[in-house]
Amino acid sequence: MKSSTGTASPERRAQKRIPDGKWRTALTDIEPNKILLRGYAVDELMGRLTFGEAIYLLLMGEIPSPSMGTLMDAMLVSFIDHGTTPPSTLSARNTATTGAPLRACVAAGVLGFGTYHGGDIERCQLFLDGGLDLVREGQSYRKAAETIVERCQATDQALPGFGHRYHTIDPRATRLLQLAHELEVDQAYTQLLRALEHEFTRHQAFASRPLPINVDGAVAAICADVGLPPEVADALLIISRVPGLAAHALEEQQREAPMRAIDPTSHAYDGPKERRMPERRS
Amino acid sequence: MKSSTGTASPERRAQKRIPDGKWRTALTDIEPNKILLRGYAVDELMGRLTFGEAIYLLLMGEIPSPSMGTLMDAMLVSFIDHGTTPPSTLSARNTATTGAPLRACVAAGVLGFGTYHGGDIERCQLFLDGGLDLVREGQSYRKAAETIVERCQATDQALPGFGHRYHTIDPRATRLLQLAHELEVDQAYTQLLRALEHEFTRHQAFASRPLPINVDGAVAAICADVGLPPEVADALLIISRVPGLAAHALEEQQREAPMRAIDPTSHAYDGPKERRMPERRS
Amino acid sequence: MKSSTGTASPERRAQKRIPDGKWRTALTDIEPNKILLRGYAVDELMGRLTFGEAIYLLLMGEIPSPSMGTLMDAMLVSFIDHGTTPPSTLSARNTATTGAPLRACVAAGVLGFGTYHGGDIERCQLFLDGGLDLVREGQSYRKAAETIVERCQATDQALPGFGHRYHTIDPRATRLLQLAHELEVDQAYTQLLRALEHEFTRHQAFASRPLPINVDGAVAAICADVGLPPEVADALLIISRVPGLAAHALEEQQREAPMRAIDPTSHAYDGPKERRMPERRS
Amino acid sequence: MKSSTGTASPERRAQKRIPDGKWRTALTDIEPNKILLRGYAVDELMGRLTFGEAIYLLLMGEIPSPSMGTLMDAMLVSFIDHGTTPPSTLSARNTATTGAPLRACVAAGVLGFGTYHGGDIERCQLFLDGGLDLVREGQSYRKAAETIVERCQATDQALPGFGHRYHTIDPRATRLLQLAHELEVDQAYTQLLRALEHEFTRHQAFASRPLPINVDGAVAAICADVGLPPEVADALLIISRVPGLAAHALEEQQREAPMRAIDPTSHAYDGPKERRMPERRS
Repeated sequence: MKSSTGTASPERRAQKRIPDGKWRTALTDIEPNKILLRGYAVDELMGRLTFGEAIYLLLMGEIPSPSMGTLMDAMLVSFIDHGTTPPSTLSARNTATTGAPLRACVAAGVLGFGTYHGGDIERCQLFLDGGLDLVREGQSYRKAAETIVERCQATDQALPGFGHRYHTIDPRATRLLQLAHELEVDQAYTQLLRALEHEFTRHQAFASRPLPINVDGAVAAICADVGLPPEVADALLIISRVPGLAAHALEEQQREAPMRAIDPTSHAYDGPKERRMPERRS
Repeated sequence: MKSSTGTASPERRAQKRIPDGKWRTALTDIEPNKILLRGYAVDELMGRLTFGEAIYLLLMGEIPSPSMGTLMDAMLVSFIDHGTTPPSTLSARNTATTGAPLRACVAAGVLGFGTYHGGDIERCQLFLDGGLDLVREGQSYRKAAETIVERCQATDQALPGFGHRYHTIDPRATRLLQLAHELEVDQAYTQLLRALEHEFTRHQAFASRPLPINVDGAVAAICADVGLPPEVADALLIISRVPGLAAHALEEQQREAPMRAIDPTSHAYDGPKERRMPERRS
Repeated sequence: MKSSTGTASPERRAQKRIPDGKWRTALTDIEPNKILLRGYAVDELMGRLTFGEAIYLLLMGEIPSPSMGTLMDAMLVSFIDHGTTPPSTLSARNTATTGAPLRACVAAGVLGFGTYHGGDIERCQLFLDGGLDLVREGQSYRKAAETIVERCQATDQALPGFGHRYHTIDPRATRLLQLAHELEVDQAYTQLLRALEHEFTRHQAFASRPLPINVDGAVAAICADVGLPPEVADALLIISRVPGLAAHALEEQQREAPMRAIDPTSHAYDGPKERRMPERRS
Repeated sequence: MKSSTGTASPERRAQKRIPDGKWRTALTDIEPNKILLRGYAVDELMGRLTFGEAIYLLLMGEIPSPSMGTLMDAMLVSFIDHGTTPPSTLSARNTATTGAPLRACVAAGVLGFGTYHGGDIERCQLFLDGGLDLVREGQSYRKAAETIVERCQATDQALPGFGHRYHTIDPRATRLLQLAHELEVDQAYTQLLRALEHEFTRHQAFASRPLPINVDGAVAAICADVGLPPEVADALLIISRVPGLAAHALEEQQREAPMRAIDPTSHAYDGPKERRMPERRS
C-alpha cells in the first residue's frame, strides 16, 4: 500500500538507531511479579493515586503535584457526559441497538470525536497563541484582547473556546477556571482567555450573541498554562468521554428495544431530580 | 436489515410504552446553564469527586461511599497498562504507525478486548457462583473450595481468575484484596476466592503449576461482593484500559518511524528505573 | 489481562507445531515484482475476474465457476444498500457529521452489524438444518415443512429467513432464488426454504401476517447449498455493506451541515426517479 | 463539546433549506416491495451488474459504461490483498487473536488506512496536477516531466505514485495502465505519469533507486482521467481492502492459537504454488 513511502526520507531511516535491534518503550516495565508504571510499582500506586492522577503519570511520566492531580480529575469529570445528543453518543447507542458488544459501542463512539466534535482544544490554543504574541511584544492583556476582538468582528468565523449552542454561561468552564485560580496554576493563557471574554461582553458587535468561555476554552487555556501538550489534551478528551459512551450503550441495552430508530431530539430525562452533594463531600 | 426481526415478538412491541412518544434517559439532564449528572450539577462534582468516583456515579446512579470510591480508583489504576504485548495494545500501535489520528488508534485497541482478552471477569464470577452454591447449601468455604478443586483436577481447563502466563504472584490482585479487606468490603466471593487459592496451593495435582489469584479474579470477586453487576465490571475494564492504549499510540507516534513492522517480542524498556512514591503520597 | 488463559489447554499449546518457528498464511504470496493471490498473479486476475469473483477466490481458495461467480456478484449487490434507517448506516452518518475521516465512518458502521442486525444468516441455516434432519430421516420436503410450521405456530418467535418489517415480498430474495435456479445451484436448503414459504402461506395461523422469504433467508439457503460456510457468509455480508456505508458517509459530508442531529425517520428521497436498465445490460 | 460551533457561520445555517423540514438522500429509495438504487430496482441489477459496477452506480449515480465497469472491477481487485505485513492487516489479526467477532477485526483494520498507508492517491493527484499546469501552459508532457523531475532531484521527498519498498516493477500498476489503454480511457494524467516514469529512468540522480509507477500512482492517474473525484477514490480503496482484512481475520481464527504474539516478519506462505488462470477465463 505504501509505495512511495518506500523511498523514505532521511529522518525515517534514522530509526534503525538501536544497536540491539530492539524497539523501545518508556511506559511500563514488566518483570516477574512486578509491574512498573513509569518506574512505580502499580500495586504501590493502587489506593494512593486517583485514576486521574495515574492517567497523568502514564501520559506525562511523573506523579502530578496534589494541585495538578485535583485539576486532572476535575477536567476528566467535566467532560464525562454530554447527554444524548452528541453524534458520538448516538453512534454508541446506534451500535448498541444492533446487539453489538459494549466494546464495539464504545469504539464506534470514540470514532466520532472528529474535527467539529472535540477538536476545539488545539484550535483554541492556537487562537490564544495569536493573542499572546501581542502580549509578548509588550501589549497588556486587555489591549491584546481588544485587538483580537476587533479582528474577530470583521470575520464571521466561530471563535474557538467561546460561545455555546445551548448555554449562555458554561458552568464547567466557570468551575474549572475557579479551581485553576484556587490551585494557583492559572497563568498567561487563562489570563488572556478572561480578558477576551471581558472584551466580547463589552463590544457592541457581539451584543446580540453571548460569547461566554466554554469548557473547551477553559481546558485549552489551563492545559497550556500547566504544560500539557495538545496531544495529551486530546488524549484526555478521549479518555474522559469513554465512561459516558459506556453508560449510554448500557442504558440503551437495558431500557430500549433492539433495532429501534433513535431520534436524538425526542427524548426526556427521567432520572433523579436535582440534588445536592452529601455534606461531607463538598 | 429487515427480515425476521420484522415479525417482532410481543415484548419488543411493548416498548412503545410512553404516552408522549419520547424515549427516556436517566443519565444526564441538560438545562440552560445547567448540566446534571444523575441529579448532581457537574460543576459541583468537579474538584470534589475523583474521576473514578464520577465513573461510579454515572454507571451506578449514586455517589460512592469513600471506601467504594477508593476501591473504584484502585481497580481502574490496576488495569491502566499492561505493557506492549497485549493484542489490543498492538492494534493501537499498528494503527498509530499508519498515521491515523489518536481516536482511531484507541478505537482499534478497544475492539481487541475480546473473548480471550479481558473477558475473564464474568466467567470468574460464574465460576465462583458455582462454589457459593455449595456454601449456601451449608458447606464451609474450605469444604466448598476442596470440592471445586477436585472437580478442576479432572478437567484440564483454564481456571478463570487463577494463574498467570508470566507472574507467579499477581501483585495487583494481592493489593486489591488487601485494600478490599482494609476498607471492609470483602465478603462471600472474596472469601471463596482466597479459600480456592489456598486449596490450589495445597493440592498435589497443581503442585507443578502455580495458580495464584490474578487481577481478573480479584476484580471479579470484589465487584460481586460490592454489588457491581457484570456489565458494569465489563465497562470498568474498557474504561480503565483506554489511557494505556492512548499512551502507547502517542509513544508510537513520537518515537517510531511510520509504517514500521512491529514485532511484539522484540522490545526493551528504557523509562525510569524502579523508584518509590514520594513520602507524602504513601 | 491474560490471566487464566496462561494455563493454556493442550490444543492451544499445540500451535508451536512448525519447525522453523514461523507462522503460516495461505492467502497471498509476495515475491519481488510478483503478488500471488491463492497462487494466481494478481495482474493476471485484473480485468479477468470481477470483484465478486476475486472475493470468492480470496475467501474460498479457488476461482469460482462462472455460475458461482455470477451468484457471488448478485449476492453482494443484493445487500449493497438499505437506505438511511439501519443503525449501522446511522452510526456511519453520525460519525461523518463530526468531521471524522471516511475510514472512521465506515469502521463505526461495520461495528453495527450485531446480533439483531445482519446476524440472521447463521440462525437461518440452523433453522433450516432442523428441517433437513427430517428430510434425511425420510420425510418429503412438504411434510418436513408442515412439521416445522406446526412447531412455529406454537411459539411466538421470529422466524429466521422469513418475514419483513416493511415489505410483503422481498424482491431481492425472489431474484436470488430465481438466479440460483437458472444457474442450477439450488439444492436441499433452497428447496426446503420454498416449501416452508408455501406452508406459511397456506397455514391459518399465519394468515394475518405475511411471511415471505427474505433476503437473509435466500442468502442463507443458497450459501448452504453451494458450500459457503457460515463464517464466509458472515464475511460476505460485511463486505457487501461497506460501499453503502461509504456512500452514506460521503453524502452526509457533502450535503449536510456538521454536527447536525440526525432524525432517522424524517428524511425524503430526492434522487433519480424509477428507471429501467439500459437495454444492452439487461 | 460543541461549543464554538454554536456560533455557526452563514453557510452552515443555510442547510435549513427544506420547507418540509426533512433531510434528503439521493442514494436509495425504499417503497413497499421495491428497493431502488439511484432509481434502478436492486433486483433488476442483481445478476446484471458486477459488484464493482454496482459500487460505481452507488458512488457516482450512474451505471458505468462497460469499459468503466471493467476498470472498476480491475481497480478493486488490484488492492484486494497485500499479504500479512501491512499494519491494517496486523490490526485485524491482532483483534482476531483476542476472540473478537469478525466485524470488530474488519473495523480495526479499516482504521489503519491512515496518512502513510493508503493515503497516496490524493497526494499523487495533486503531484500530477502540478505537472499538468505546465502542460496547460503549453509545455509538452515530456518537457513538463523534465521540469518536475528536476524539481524532485533537489528535494529528498518521497514521490507520490512512484517507487516501491519491495518491488522494482509494480505488476498491478503495469496491468492497470495497460487495461486503461486498451479500454481507451487513459488521458492527460496517465500520459504525464508515463512521461514522469520515463524521465526518472533516464535521469542520473535517480539511477541508484528505481522509481517505477506504483499501484497508487496508476489508480490516482486513471481515477483523475475518468472523472472519479478523490473522495470516491478514497472510498474505493477502503472498499477494496475489506475482503483482504476479512480473509486474514478468518485465517487467524482458524489456524492460530488465541492470544498469540504476532511477529509480522516471521511468517511463511504455504498456499497453492504459482498457477495459471483456467483457459476460458483468460
